[in-house]
Amino acid sequence: MDYPPPLERLISELRRLPGIGPKSAQRIAFHLLRSTPEDTERLSASIAGLLASIRTCSRCNAFTDTEVCATCADPARSDKAICVVEEPHNLLSIERTRDFRGRYHVLHGALSPIHGIGPDELRIKSLLDKVREGQVEEVILATSPTVEGEATAVYLSQLLKPLGVRVTRIAVGVPVGSDLDWADEVTMARAMEGRREY
Amino acid sequence: MDYPPPLERLISELRRLPGIGPKSAQRIAFHLLRSTPEDTERLSASIAGLLASIRTCSRCNAFTDTEVCATCADPARSDKAICVVEEPHNLLSIERTRDFRGRYHVLHGALSPIHGIGPDELRIKSLLDKVREGQVEEVILATSPTVEGEATAVYLSQLLKPLGVRVTRIAVGVPVGSDLDWADEVTMARAMEGRREY
Repeated sequence: MDYPPPLERLISELRRLPGIGPKSAQRIAFHLLRSTPEDTERLSASIAGLLASIRTCSRCNAFTDTEVCATCADPARSDKAICVVEEPHNLLSIERTRDFRGRYHVLHGALSPIHGIGPDELRIKSLLDKVREGQVEEVILATSPTVEGEATAVYLSQLLKPLGVRVTRIAVGVPVGSDLDWADEVTMARAMEGRREY
Repeated sequence: MDYPPPLERLISELRRLPGIGPKSAQRIAFHLLRSTPEDTERLSASIAGLLASIRTCSRCNAFTDTEVCATCADPARSDKAICVVEEPHNLLSIERTRDFRGRYHVLHGALSPIHGIGPDELRIKSLLDKVREGQVEEVILATSPTVEGEATAVYLSQLLKPLGVRVTRIAVGVPVGSDLDWADEVTMARAMEGRREY
């Protein structure tokens, strides 16, 4: 037995979303069947309107619904430091610390020759242009501590250092609150290597 | 920092879906931001069109896009047995066994006084009407082995037996392939109680 075609179509569309398997897709579809037309209309409209209303910030490439995003438009933030991240949602992790008051730059990916992502696929040129403007004193490379993120950080540091700017990399080590027993050996080695004086 | 309003709206709509927490909602929203307009349009349209195109079968109350669902319209199936389930998706679990060739009846819920669901909220009358037509020989109560499902089965059996039909209940016991060590004591007690001669 199959479900009626409109239901099957919705289930197969839902399964294309990340983290949604066949069971979840079915569960969501049946939940929607029990919702009010207003509820399904709101969800449908917010999906349909998304791409039309969201663009990337002309300064930092974060997602925004205005020409320049809220972070770039904030006059209280310093232009002296730029924090470079891979993806727009990485900003949130850093903003949650409430420590960083500089600007951001989103690369929209990381170098990955296997997946055909080279320097031209990332938003690197606009970062270099911003640094050449002369106001930036430090570029913090906050790409992920993965093979791709590390390669991207090394590549960017080689481009940035000749421009006379301080280039730093976020620390890699054992996470706060975790037990040393659970740290993998690569993380542990990096934590030892990155040790600092008390 | 907050996301731009259209993105926030979508994330909050997605969080209303079952099994979607804040992280999943964010992940799906960012996935959609990277999709093509065709992809988001297809998803949006299949959600918007769902309630308009899906109704419940006039015979068995399963979801269908026609007046009578495929199972009820199938002349190869027998009218002598009706399998009663709580929810439309329960049909699929039974159909997957490829054993049952009778008809279905979907109650759209189970008795639950705590949640204000009494007999009037369930599709019980049409089940009794079908049985009174005289062709049905057996009603299999396949509601879940939960407090609500059991209460519903007991209630239905009391209504059905006086109509001169055979009323049966699916077996409850230890699932195939599971270790007895993992069976909870209620299931184990029911498995013992329901034991059969070899």
